Amino acid sequence: MQTHFDVIIAGGGPAGVSAALTLRARNKSVLLCYSDLGALKTAHRVDNYPGMPRISGEEMIRTFHKQCEDAGVTLYPHAVRQLLPMGDTVSVMAGDQLFTCGNMLLCVGVVRKMRIPGEQEYAGHGISYCATCDGMFYRGKKIAVISAYEEGVEEANFLGSIAGETLYFAEKPHHAADLSDNITVMDGKVSAILSENGKVTHVQCGEEKIPVDGVFILRPATPPDQMAPGLCVQDGKIVVDADYRTNLDRVYAAGDCVGAPYQIAKAVGEGNMAALKMVQGN
Amino acid sequence: MQTHFDVIIAGGGPAGVSAALTLRARNKSVLLCYSDLGALKTAHRVDNYPGMPRISGEEMIRTFHKQCEDAGVTLYPHAVRQLLPMGDTVSVMAGDQLFTCGNMLLCVGVVRKMRIPGEQEYAGHGISYCATCDGMFYRGKKIAVISAYEEGVEEANFLGSIAGETLYFAEKPHHAADLSDNITVMDGKVSAILSENGKVTHVQCGEEKIPVDGVFILRPATPPDQMAPGLCVQDGKIVVDADYRTNLDRVYAAGDCVGAPYQIAKAVGEGNMAALKMVQGN
Repeated sequence: MQTHFDVIIAGGGPAGVSAALTLRARNKSVLLCYSDLGALKTAHRVDNYPGMPRISGEEMIRTFHKQCEDAGVTLYPHAVRQLLPMGDTVSVMAGDQLFTCGNMLLCVGVVRKMRIPGEQEYAGHGISYCATCDGMFYRGKKIAVISAYEEGVEEANFLGSIAGETLYFAEKPHHAADLSDNITVMDGKVSAILSENGKVTHVQCGEEKIPVDGVFILRPATPPDQMAPGLCVQDGKIVVDADYRTNLDRVYAAGDCVGAPYQIAKAVGEGNMAALKMVQGN
Repeated sequence: MQTHFDVIIAGGGPAGVSAALTLRARNKSVLLCYSDLGALKTAHRVDNYPGMPRISGEEMIRTFHKQCEDAGVTLYPHAVRQLLPMGDTVSVMAGDQLFTCGNMLLCVGVVRKMRIPGEQEYAGHGISYCATCDGMFYRGKKIAVISAYEEGVEEANFLGSIAGETLYFAEKPHHAADLSDNITVMDGKVSAILSENGKVTHVQCGEEKIPVDGVFILRPATPPDQMAPGLCVQDGKIVVDADYRTNLDRVYAAGDCVGAPYQIAKAVGEGNMAALKMVQGN
């Protein structure tokens, strides 16, 4: 699989799709990474998007993605987990692959806050959102995997092959029969992540405090400030300037993740404009 | 025909259609006025608008208007000629009808400058763009009608029934066989509008200077600052704030007419956002 693209887009909703199509029209190579499609996929019917009357959100996305495919966009059905600007390129970890690109566009939608007490404080200090990125730091150690979806199973298996002991907590119900034998499936949920001296030490599960060296949280959508360390986020919105640039070099953002109104038309417009700014900017 | 609407939209392209659909979704009554559909109608193929792959501009507009109709938008295939904020409402002259609305949205696209020397200077001082608005001022007088399209014929006939003498100049070729007998069809074009002491006195046609009391210019798209006296326009763009408000009370603008990029997706996004601002604003 090709690993360098002119632009990598995180998010396969209306903003990401619109940007992808405009970038292809300008002959740029585009990787569109997506997993959870958020609110749109569950929309029963959308009425006010011009050109697609009375369509379900799911059908809209199917049409969008087919159009992208036909336009030569590379679709990659895995979430972007981490990105890092590196001078002339941006390194992007998506699924279990490392990619690079000239510019990155975040169209990650509104990531619902599903934070566990302690999560925000210790993210990056014993809490990770990316098994591929950080797994090696926990070789031989004891970790808790908090997973909200089926894709977490595969990542937990990868972690289980590295860590000394792996506990698996399902944050939301999902199919987890494919977990490796060396992973312990736990009953109950993690209600808090505990720490001492700035380091994660335990997870709280019911009355029990279980000692761990680290916690991996695997959800379909990673909060953008976890995905891109140092990214400026205010009130849950990625801060962009009039050209859709974030505070990080070569990283742009558009659509719901930069603010309301949460409308398909608005997201489509912003994706288009951000794409054109990227083309102009380089 | 209903004459009061919550919102009247000038322009039936992507921005106007998007606004109309969103306003209907918020249960507002909407009149969508349009005549010339500008660049989009002549677009051979549009590739980068999400949801409508490989479509011609004409087919796109047909689909858009059908969707508006189904959503309960009142379509009115005549251009807005003049508008005037009047406190709680805006008065709008479109075709030969007078309407009122709570808010007005201008989505008039990029109006190509087709100005005749003298036109800009004397607009409003002997030059008019609206037969219904200003015809009565020329009762019994001699006027020149400069028309760029077939719809001008009907208006010229109306003027012919009021004025003492009506000369008809075709600015662009069009079907004009239905002109009344009392209207004189002229050969040649008006190359300049001449004046004395700030008042229009003659039109120049070839070598000839023809004395007239007034000039009516009838084109499918009226420059926005002629349509709305006092409207703030800079470098050909209607000036709006972040909420898509113009400097005129209750008058908003969105799409190509507020600036580049001239993209369907951008126009659709702005139409949607302007509509939501209108709903919030009142």
